[in-house]
Amino acid sequence: MPLLRLLPRRAWAALLSQLLRPPCASCAGAVRCQSQVAEAVLTSQLKARQEKPNFIIKIPKGTRDLSPQHMVVREKILDLVISCFKRHGAKVMDTPAFELKEILTEKYGEDSGLMYDLKDQGGELLSLRYDLTVPFARYLAMNKVKKMKRYHVGKVWRRESPTIVQGRYREFCQCDFDIAGQFDPMIPDAECLKIMCEILSGLQLGDFLIKVNDRRIVDGVFAACGVPESKFRAICSSIDKLDKMAWKDVRHEMVAKKGLAPEVADRIGDYVQCHGGVSLVEQMFQDPRLSQNKQALEGLGDLKLLFEYLTLFGIAEKISFDLSLARGLDYYTGVIYEAVLLQTPTQAGEEPLNVGSVAAGGRYDGLVGMFDPKGHKVPCVGLSIGVERIFYIVEQRMKTKGEKVRTTETQVFVATPQKNFLQERLKLITELWDAGIKAEMLYKNNPKLLTQLHYCESTGIPLVVIIGEQELKEGVIKIRSVASREEVAIKRENLVAEIQKRLSES
Amino acid sequence: MPLLRLLPRRAWAALLSQLLRPPCASCAGAVRCQSQVAEAVLTSQLKARQEKPNFIIKIPKGTRDLSPQHMVVREKILDLVISCFKRHGAKVMDTPAFELKEILTEKYGEDSGLMYDLKDQGGELLSLRYDLTVPFARYLAMNKVKKMKRYHVGKVWRRESPTIVQGRYREFCQCDFDIAGQFDPMIPDAECLKIMCEILSGLQLGDFLIKVNDRRIVDGVFAACGVPESKFRAICSSIDKLDKMAWKDVRHEMVAKKGLAPEVADRIGDYVQCHGGVSLVEQMFQDPRLSQNKQALEGLGDLKLLFEYLTLFGIAEKISFDLSLARGLDYYTGVIYEAVLLQTPTQAGEEPLNVGSVAAGGRYDGLVGMFDPKGHKVPCVGLSIGVERIFYIVEQRMKTKGEKVRTTETQVFVATPQKNFLQERLKLITELWDAGIKAEMLYKNNPKLLTQLHYCESTGIPLVVIIGEQELKEGVIKIRSVASREEVAIKRENLVAEIQKRLSES
Repeated sequence: MPLLRLLPRRAWAALLSQLLRPPCASCAGAVRCQSQVAEAVLTSQLKARQEKPNFIIKIPKGTRDLSPQHMVVREKILDLVISCFKRHGAKVMDTPAFELKEILTEKYGEDSGLMYDLKDQGGELLSLRYDLTVPFARYLAMNKVKKMKRYHVGKVWRRESPTIVQGRYREFCQCDFDIAGQFDPMIPDAECLKIMCEILSGLQLGDFLIKVNDRRIVDGVFAACGVPESKFRAICSSIDKLDKMAWKDVRHEMVAKKGLAPEVADRIGDYVQCHGGVSLVEQMFQDPRLSQNKQALEGLGDLKLLFEYLTLFGIAEKISFDLSLARGLDYYTGVIYEAVLLQTPTQAGEEPLNVGSVAAGGRYDGLVGMFDPKGHKVPCVGLSIGVERIFYIVEQRMKTKGEKVRTTETQVFVATPQKNFLQERLKLITELWDAGIKAEMLYKNNPKLLTQLHYCESTGIPLVVIIGEQELKEGVIKIRSVASREEVAIKRENLVAEIQKRLSES
Repeated sequence: MPLLRLLPRRAWAALLSQLLRPPCASCAGAVRCQSQVAEAVLTSQLKARQEKPNFIIKIPKGTRDLSPQHMVVREKILDLVISCFKRHGAKVMDTPAFELKEILTEKYGEDSGLMYDLKDQGGELLSLRYDLTVPFARYLAMNKVKKMKRYHVGKVWRRESPTIVQGRYREFCQCDFDIAGQFDPMIPDAECLKIMCEILSGLQLGDFLIKVNDRRIVDGVFAACGVPESKFRAICSSIDKLDKMAWKDVRHEMVAKKGLAPEVADRIGDYVQCHGGVSLVEQMFQDPRLSQNKQALEGLGDLKLLFEYLTLFGIAEKISFDLSLARGLDYYTGVIYEAVLLQTPTQAGEEPLNVGSVAAGGRYDGLVGMFDPKGHKVPCVGLSIGVERIFYIVEQRMKTKGEKVRTTETQVFVATPQKNFLQERLKLITELWDAGIKAEMLYKNNPKLLTQLHYCESTGIPLVVIIGEQELKEGVIKIRSVASREEVAIKRENLVAEIQKRLSES
């Protein structure tokens, strides 16, 4: 009876006192009749409303409103990300916010419990999407699309305990770019890394590094160290925590919680501290244990080719082959990668930031096949830009620097120094709007001139056009620059042209 | 046990046969033990997977994927709508996809049952947002914002039985513009109508008309006709159906289902057929019954003022005072409006369209107060553009005309006529990307030239740059125009500049 939860304490007391009345005459007296209960609930509800209780307006846990200040920053960042995706020939698409629950289950490994399910309201069992990758794979399989380069920007939802300080929420935006199709090895994979570099450089977030590994190498290391195959994904999920947890804690989780033999864990420990460039790839080819593993050798061969292409793209020095990179999601099958910011330049008064990964992705050649009735595979590789973390970093920097952004784009304000000039202002602003000029005025019959000019200064509107008795008589309009406070009178018929000229110059 | 629903029929049979085994020895035998049931479920699941059943991939009822073709059309339309909102000085904001259920209840009248609730997963009771207006009002009250002009573009969800042919879905996009704050009467209201006109003209959807009425006039008519006050909202909801149902059916609903006296219904019938310009407003001032009603007179007074402003905005001829307009939602308190397309020019082969309302809105002065603990009111007026219907109309027209849109923006394709030129292509495309040029190439080591040129033609890429043995030797690159098939060789170092020149000319 969720209704009752909404009642404040006093209303509860009233409800209880109603329920403690003597039983009604029409029923046997052993149990309280339905009508009495219903009446009591209704009375309490009405009472609660009249009392105007301390009704606290909230938004759901782990979510937030995005104010205009937030949105302006986000839109600038998203514009840069999207223009990079378009530069690489991607199309845009969208999928519903929710999917049939069975589409999403068993795709995310240990994280599956964090899905938001919809209530069964007499129809299908639905869940809010958890990422944009599984819906993309479902789309490809459902429409029998064998080849596609697309980007997708949209919200996803995860019921994680939110650590809001770090900019993590239960509702957040993802920006994904993926290439589906059967192509020659490592060419699309290298392009994904190139895109990550272009975006992170373009956003000027400071120095960054992209860690690269391959699921076949991860599994090869596990096999070489003696991890039973049934524990591969669980151990992978533990290794994935190495960017947030110390090795000894990860080791403890693997041994104590996941039942791995201590000596196996220690062997893994030797590998996961290795990172380097293409020379580490060569070195691993010689590794006595790893070189026995067919899968690992395939992964190493692909990484070698990948580094060749990354050199041609001019980004090899940004990439580090890192054996500690595992990636938590179940669906990866080949190359995996994750970009981290190396260090935020700590300026005076700026808080040090620890934001971890800002972009990640990898190859998932089996996911589409899971949705195809005949298991037909469509190989895919893609990346996701961690825009929420990037929004957070940029906002923090602006706060530190005291930077402000305009939240409107208004170019011209229509003002009057006299009373009873509403009609003239309305005619004037119509001319501007109809010419495509962004214009505002105050919604007052007789605003004070000072109030009008103050509004322009506080909202950053650069130009004011002023109409009063004198201007009307002379057939002119005054144009005032808010910054310089200079005013010039121009013929009314030249107004739009003059304003367009000024706006194009600025 | 939702798990069981996912099992196909054959797996069900297997599960049942397992359950019909003799009871296990360790339990009393009266009831089946938990472990046996769990084992049976697991076995059936595994069986189901191995059998690769006719697993049908679907998306939730009433939803759809938006392909790149859809998205390109939508983005063009949304750009036009948003640039109009910005022209009028609006800021942008966003709210979470779901709200606490109690925020949304009792705001929408008869439609409340159509909300999507989230499953109670041990936290708050949540529902997906049903429109963008209630979240906006909640935002204003929660943040004690007294004044704001904002737009909001986002998805909303309603569990209506979808009539997909007409472009109605359970998940759809809304585009809202609202002005909150205490201002002089009818100035923001008139601007909302101006915005609707600008957008509908800009989209070139054909001739349109905006019906205007006022909730106080609607209620005044009801009072004057003898509707009991307790039935006002229910009767209002019936009147709202007049654009889809004949008067006699609406009358039947009011009398038979909502218990209205037939003579009262007939009196309403006399009013709801009235529509006209400002002269009808004057006429209604003289109406013997209506002129006795204080609320109705206030509404008529405001409409008179509204028409004055609409004339100054140059849009009065687009507006019709229409007493049949009621608007279904509970929260309106003053002026209400709804834009309808008058007629789609029926061209040869074009199917006649009946799309109804394409934009609507009104004044809601009480909604914010419902969220404020002290009931402080923030008057609001706003509009919502029916973008889904507009998308549908534009897509239908394009289909009829055989118009196609490019779904990518790629400007240059990097091709080679020779084998073993992947490395050179990768170097060349890097130069283009790094110069901000939108470029693609095939992800093949040795693609055929014809395949490469065909890709450009089919995707609409205007320019090809070609590198082969000869070009490499001479230090040149060939630029080919896909349309004219003309080719010129230019020095490699001039490539980016030459391409930028060509792109700026086209």
